[in-house]
Amino acid sequence: MSTDHLIELRRDLHRHPEPAWREFYTTCRIVEEIERIGVTDLYVGREAIDVEERLAVPDSAELVEWFNRAREAGAKEDVLERLDGGYTGCVAVVERGEGPTIGLRVDIDGLLREESRDDEHAPAAEGFRSENEGAMHACGHDAHATIGLGVLEAITESDFQGTLKVFFQPGEEMIAGGKAMAKSEHLADVEYLLALHIGLDHPTGEVVAGIDDFLAVSHLHAEFSGQPAHAGAEPDAGENAVQAMAAAIQNLYSIPRHHDGATRVNAGQVGGGTASNIVPESAYIEGEVRGQTTELMEYMRERADRVLEGAAAMHGCEVTVETRGEAPSARSDQQLVDVVSSVARTRPGVERVLERDALGGSEDATYLMQEVQKNGGYASYVGIGTDHPGGHHTATFDVDEESIAIGIDVISRSITEIAATRPE
Amino acid sequence: MSTDHLIELRRDLHRHPEPAWREFYTTCRIVEEIERIGVTDLYVGREAIDVEERLAVPDSAELVEWFNRAREAGAKEDVLERLDGGYTGCVAVVERGEGPTIGLRVDIDGLLREESRDDEHAPAAEGFRSENEGAMHACGHDAHATIGLGVLEAITESDFQGTLKVFFQPGEEMIAGGKAMAKSEHLADVEYLLALHIGLDHPTGEVVAGIDDFLAVSHLHAEFSGQPAHAGAEPDAGENAVQAMAAAIQNLYSIPRHHDGATRVNAGQVGGGTASNIVPESAYIEGEVRGQTTELMEYMRERADRVLEGAAAMHGCEVTVETRGEAPSARSDQQLVDVVSSVARTRPGVERVLERDALGGSEDATYLMQEVQKNGGYASYVGIGTDHPGGHHTATFDVDEESIAIGIDVISRSITEIAATRPE
Amino acid sequence: MSTDHLIELRRDLHRHPEPAWREFYTTCRIVEEIERIGVTDLYVGREAIDVEERLAVPDSAELVEWFNRAREAGAKEDVLERLDGGYTGCVAVVERGEGPTIGLRVDIDGLLREESRDDEHAPAAEGFRSENEGAMHACGHDAHATIGLGVLEAITESDFQGTLKVFFQPGEEMIAGGKAMAKSEHLADVEYLLALHIGLDHPTGEVVAGIDDFLAVSHLHAEFSGQPAHAGAEPDAGENAVQAMAAAIQNLYSIPRHHDGATRVNAGQVGGGTASNIVPESAYIEGEVRGQTTELMEYMRERADRVLEGAAAMHGCEVTVETRGEAPSARSDQQLVDVVSSVARTRPGVERVLERDALGGSEDATYLMQEVQKNGGYASYVGIGTDHPGGHHTATFDVDEESIAIGIDVISRSITEIAATRPE
Amino acid sequence: MSTDHLIELRRDLHRHPEPAWREFYTTCRIVEEIERIGVTDLYVGREAIDVEERLAVPDSAELVEWFNRAREAGAKEDVLERLDGGYTGCVAVVERGEGPTIGLRVDIDGLLREESRDDEHAPAAEGFRSENEGAMHACGHDAHATIGLGVLEAITESDFQGTLKVFFQPGEEMIAGGKAMAKSEHLADVEYLLALHIGLDHPTGEVVAGIDDFLAVSHLHAEFSGQPAHAGAEPDAGENAVQAMAAAIQNLYSIPRHHDGATRVNAGQVGGGTASNIVPESAYIEGEVRGQTTELMEYMRERADRVLEGAAAMHGCEVTVETRGEAPSARSDQQLVDVVSSVARTRPGVERVLERDALGGSEDATYLMQEVQKNGGYASYVGIGTDHPGGHHTATFDVDEESIAIGIDVISRSITEIAATRPE
Repeated sequence: MSTDHLIELRRDLHRHPEPAWREFYTTCRIVEEIERIGVTDLYVGREAIDVEERLAVPDSAELVEWFNRAREAGAKEDVLERLDGGYTGCVAVVERGEGPTIGLRVDIDGLLREESRDDEHAPAAEGFRSENEGAMHACGHDAHATIGLGVLEAITESDFQGTLKVFFQPGEEMIAGGKAMAKSEHLADVEYLLALHIGLDHPTGEVVAGIDDFLAVSHLHAEFSGQPAHAGAEPDAGENAVQAMAAAIQNLYSIPRHHDGATRVNAGQVGGGTASNIVPESAYIEGEVRGQTTELMEYMRERADRVLEGAAAMHGCEVTVETRGEAPSARSDQQLVDVVSSVARTRPGVERVLERDALGGSEDATYLMQEVQKNGGYASYVGIGTDHPGGHHTATFDVDEESIAIGIDVISRSITEIAATRPE
Repeated sequence: MSTDHLIELRRDLHRHPEPAWREFYTTCRIVEEIERIGVTDLYVGREAIDVEERLAVPDSAELVEWFNRAREAGAKEDVLERLDGGYTGCVAVVERGEGPTIGLRVDIDGLLREESRDDEHAPAAEGFRSENEGAMHACGHDAHATIGLGVLEAITESDFQGTLKVFFQPGEEMIAGGKAMAKSEHLADVEYLLALHIGLDHPTGEVVAGIDDFLAVSHLHAEFSGQPAHAGAEPDAGENAVQAMAAAIQNLYSIPRHHDGATRVNAGQVGGGTASNIVPESAYIEGEVRGQTTELMEYMRERADRVLEGAAAMHGCEVTVETRGEAPSARSDQQLVDVVSSVARTRPGVERVLERDALGGSEDATYLMQEVQKNGGYASYVGIGTDHPGGHHTATFDVDEESIAIGIDVISRSITEIAATRPE
Repeated sequence: MSTDHLIELRRDLHRHPEPAWREFYTTCRIVEEIERIGVTDLYVGREAIDVEERLAVPDSAELVEWFNRAREAGAKEDVLERLDGGYTGCVAVVERGEGPTIGLRVDIDGLLREESRDDEHAPAAEGFRSENEGAMHACGHDAHATIGLGVLEAITESDFQGTLKVFFQPGEEMIAGGKAMAKSEHLADVEYLLALHIGLDHPTGEVVAGIDDFLAVSHLHAEFSGQPAHAGAEPDAGENAVQAMAAAIQNLYSIPRHHDGATRVNAGQVGGGTASNIVPESAYIEGEVRGQTTELMEYMRERADRVLEGAAAMHGCEVTVETRGEAPSARSDQQLVDVVSSVARTRPGVERVLERDALGGSEDATYLMQEVQKNGGYASYVGIGTDHPGGHHTATFDVDEESIAIGIDVISRSITEIAATRPE
Repeated sequence: MSTDHLIELRRDLHRHPEPAWREFYTTCRIVEEIERIGVTDLYVGREAIDVEERLAVPDSAELVEWFNRAREAGAKEDVLERLDGGYTGCVAVVERGEGPTIGLRVDIDGLLREESRDDEHAPAAEGFRSENEGAMHACGHDAHATIGLGVLEAITESDFQGTLKVFFQPGEEMIAGGKAMAKSEHLADVEYLLALHIGLDHPTGEVVAGIDDFLAVSHLHAEFSGQPAHAGAEPDAGENAVQAMAAAIQNLYSIPRHHDGATRVNAGQVGGGTASNIVPESAYIEGEVRGQTTELMEYMRERADRVLEGAAAMHGCEVTVETRGEAPSARSDQQLVDVVSSVARTRPGVERVLERDALGGSEDATYLMQEVQKNGGYASYVGIGTDHPGGHHTATFDVDEESIAIGIDVISRSITEIAATRPE
């Protein structure tokens, strides 16, 4: 793919950031490219995932709104129709003679946050700022999707022998899509899996061959419901959902540390009540717990559930707790770390190769990695450095577009090498 | 005014509920009626209030939105222009020979809550449900404004001797308009003041000559600001505004009871944070404190400020606390209670007269009552019963339109009688 | 009784303050006086109360300790033996011809607090400071017992016609003895009941004929039990009873105010844990709730129980809640207020008579008052002013001994007058 | 030392457990043994420590009580006098020709907890249960002191060449004595330091050559002071120290986890208030924070101080926070781990040698280790396995006395070997 085309593609995706299960424009655009490349073994929407395993699917009204927005933005109508109901994402397959089945997973979703309008923010200055107000590609998944397509094209043009499957995964930001893709039939025969992330505080020219220390995570949504009452005239008649919520927040953060390793808890978005003079009848906590291992995450989750129940009971409220996203922990296999690091060292533009680094956050690529490893295969999560002015998830995040080509090159060469050497 | 006209007027107001300082359509409609009645001594917008004393004025964008909505709904253009900037409300004056100056205060604002679409809810069934989605006349101020106009007309047609001033007050629901109207020049010479409220769980045919036990109230808006951080990767780098908010909520409700009388506190609407995986950098509490006396309210307010400050400090956050509305306590004077109750007993449609009853809530008519009483005058807050299917502030609140005429009759006859007898 | 004898008696009691069900020395000393006066119709210990209704009885070790202390202080051995097991208090009966049965209730217990050693504190300066270290007559019950004996003697020497029963009640400070005495057979036929309290911020020479506004109260003792663990090595293995306790405290104080009237809540004494490095396995709250009415107290108590349960559940702990004392609300009858106030106005030393005043605290005389009122009788709680340097329950509380004689005079004359006039 | 003598000595110490700076009997008994062994270069009390650096020194009354108790138990009078004022502990020095200066640190204090009376608890069954009721050697420091003396004797009888200093350190349990001993002049020239602990869930026959992962710790004592008030009559007049304490507890446990490593927090012992009907005027938290590194401990400590201040401010209280004990983190040097593990493998009774293990708790031996390491020397913390029926710090903790001889043998041989080989 020409550099111009890569940049134009990435910027088009950047202009249309879409959150989990709403990647309508994005999927259409990806499919369009796949067709341009000439790959016909293609699975779109429901065909790409286990439809039972989608997490955090928004309600119909929300889906319709984004569906229409994609249509208005010019999404390809025939593809769009196959995504109706929030079945986004796709899998492209290239089969080229004898050889192992290798997977590449890239995530394609955006974030719900506003993008900077600052002149120093390149997308704003150069006219490819988000057109979906309130949403933004603030984590580089626009670049990920572009790299996925670039690798697909590079492989079709190479002497690669084997099968390559590129997984364009929806809903990573909400830890909502990994499980559905991991449980699809397409992953079942994958012997080697690479996933990748751009940036992560590594500059352009740096490559990390295997990222580890993914925290297992569980997103939870707790809804407290009580009884409203006039706060002046009859405060005793209420059952105060905001009091329950506040008690829960205080006691969620105070779940004991665990001696086995790192844990996390956050009540990241909360709210409740209707007016200053009404005893609040409802409140919610959108939160998460994490653990260095899946077990530690589960310890946190059990304690969190207990706190939420007790807090509701204290104030005569009901609470329902829903899991909105989940991902286990995972580890990159040394077998692939070796291949990627030795390939990377030879590639132009790569100035420094780190064998391993820690993420310290969460990712649902771990679902796919675990699945492949469980089946006896190997997986690695590769970091492609990029100079990014703002931090991930901030309003001024952007990528150095130079790094996209580096990523395509390192990943596609690693795939060819894996196919050739079949490391064990 | 004919019953048909009364009902048509009330329903027109009902279709256009507008919250504090956004009563553009409402004020225009009221002015139109006043002009129809033939009262020319009329003060509109800035002329009707002390412009420095408005509380809880919304931002320009919000004002513009409601202003335009009123224009689209057909508000009289020349009046509308005089209200620009959120200067709503008006005062109509009738001067008829020698006699005391008597005030009548009616409030005209709606509430921000959705109105029921249920078939059993008359406004929905009969086609005068709110056209301002998300807003509703759920407390009967549409009837109050109608009664105010009805009284104005009745007085012009009666043998009343003296001066009548009808205060059409904005922003009562938010305790935001009473002070501005109390501090206007128009109230300075008022010797007798009546205010009124419909319903309050009294059925059609019941009149309360003097309502008491207004709780003094202060609305406060607290904004906590901290520092965001990734909740998985670097939770220690954050200063958690939601933790500060939760600590504040817990400790606001636990401000000690006061031995001098009733107090109240409510964190009625709260929220914070941006996403489940971000340490929340901001949070807010929209709350209120009340007291049986103004002093008790102030005790609560001081303690609340202390709690808010301490909670922010505990979590390394800043907090700013703004007063969004305030009203003192007040008491109806026996002199007027006597007049109203004896008049009411003689009026058709009135089946039961109570001398006094307690409100148990708050009202900023108290600002006007206190002002008049401070100047040596007398005030009473009169209850006009109405059968209301849903409670005040609920989605199915409605008034029995029969009670509007009763209200006009009782109030206008009481005014005539006060003018005739000048009670002391 | 001579003034010297009164003072000597009161000071002897003052030197031996004893808390609930430990009034061994005190009861013996009272019995000694009753015998000196010559009253032989006397019920001691188990005979004086309903033994099933004692609340907050201390454990055997504690009882034995105070029993031995009383013996060492010279308590009359034959009486002492009748009190074994914490059955303290007595009832003295004088039957004198035809006439109504009138009760006088005085409380006799001390408080667990240290007495001041300051030279300005008369008991310290004049050598009658508490000899029971850590206990003190800091509320004037030494004077109450003395007045009770003085009245008994005065009545035996008067022309009183009827039956007088003086109830020397244990355990008022802990709200622990009133119920047991109210349920004894001795109260069943009482037609008129007076109770009294000295001081209450009224100076010597002032008399309050009927005190009201007793808050109903319930003392509760909550024990949280969890699981200990090493706080450094395995914090996750603990179930933290102190966290449960802290959550409970925060949410107890935040039980909503009630629109029907005053409520109170206090976690007056709390504690938990064993060492800074051990996750606390136990904790307790010694607290109370009150209400302006018995119903309001019960509302608070139900909410408190709910909070305690929920807080324990949040932290994986168990909680047991025990009622350690309880008293209803009550009101003085106008019939007796009239008699006492008219008698008081005629007595030497009385300079000012108030018909009524509010207590604002709690008292278990209310159990006896309610019992008498339920049986169709009348009751009043009389205040006898005394100059007291320190506030009630403080280390420097003391009474003006002049007021003891005034109290005896006013109460005994009121009893004679009630007997003579049988008010209805 | 004969086995009989060792056991008799250990049991004598076990019968007289003494907490920090109260090790009067213990120090006297140790000095007696040192004199018996014939070591005359001996530093007792003030001579053994930097007197300015003692932490958590109890008040005089407490010191006098334990001093007298030691005297009554038969402590050697001339030594005892040198310890007056809580200057306990000692340092014994053996100088034997040319060779390096090697330190051995053993801690000698007991714990404040009751010892089991169960028949299955050997000290109870065999008559050497604690004679200091409420105190217990529940962590094996009786065995540590015995091993220290055994090593001293073994070295004097060996061909050791160099200088051995045995540090008998007070107050480890409270993290109160390590700093004072580390800052004494005696440690300044120590080139190699061993410290030891018995048990730690390692059975008899197991040796750990170097223990790591000491959590840095800071003990804090927070005192809240407010204003008392009658909880029924005037709750608003109080400033509630228990409310402040509860808010602090809730928010201490919720100090954010740190991404750099493990942290801990505990409010291990708390209390407040005087009576159920008094608004509590005082309360305290005896707590601790820990960190995997000294920096992490300091992060926790700063946040804790902030929480304590904010919580006090919220409730109008003052808080004073005192550091009652502190210890840094430390790491055993491989140089000594190598020596100890190779020596241990050759000793009779040793069945299994672990190179390293993690403590996961805190220890103030780290002060001495850090001091030696800072001066360019090496240190290791050695684990001597022992079958212990109950866990450390529980009422049934006991050691297998067989392990004492093993400990003496392994440690003294290691010291000889270190002197001979001077590892670098």
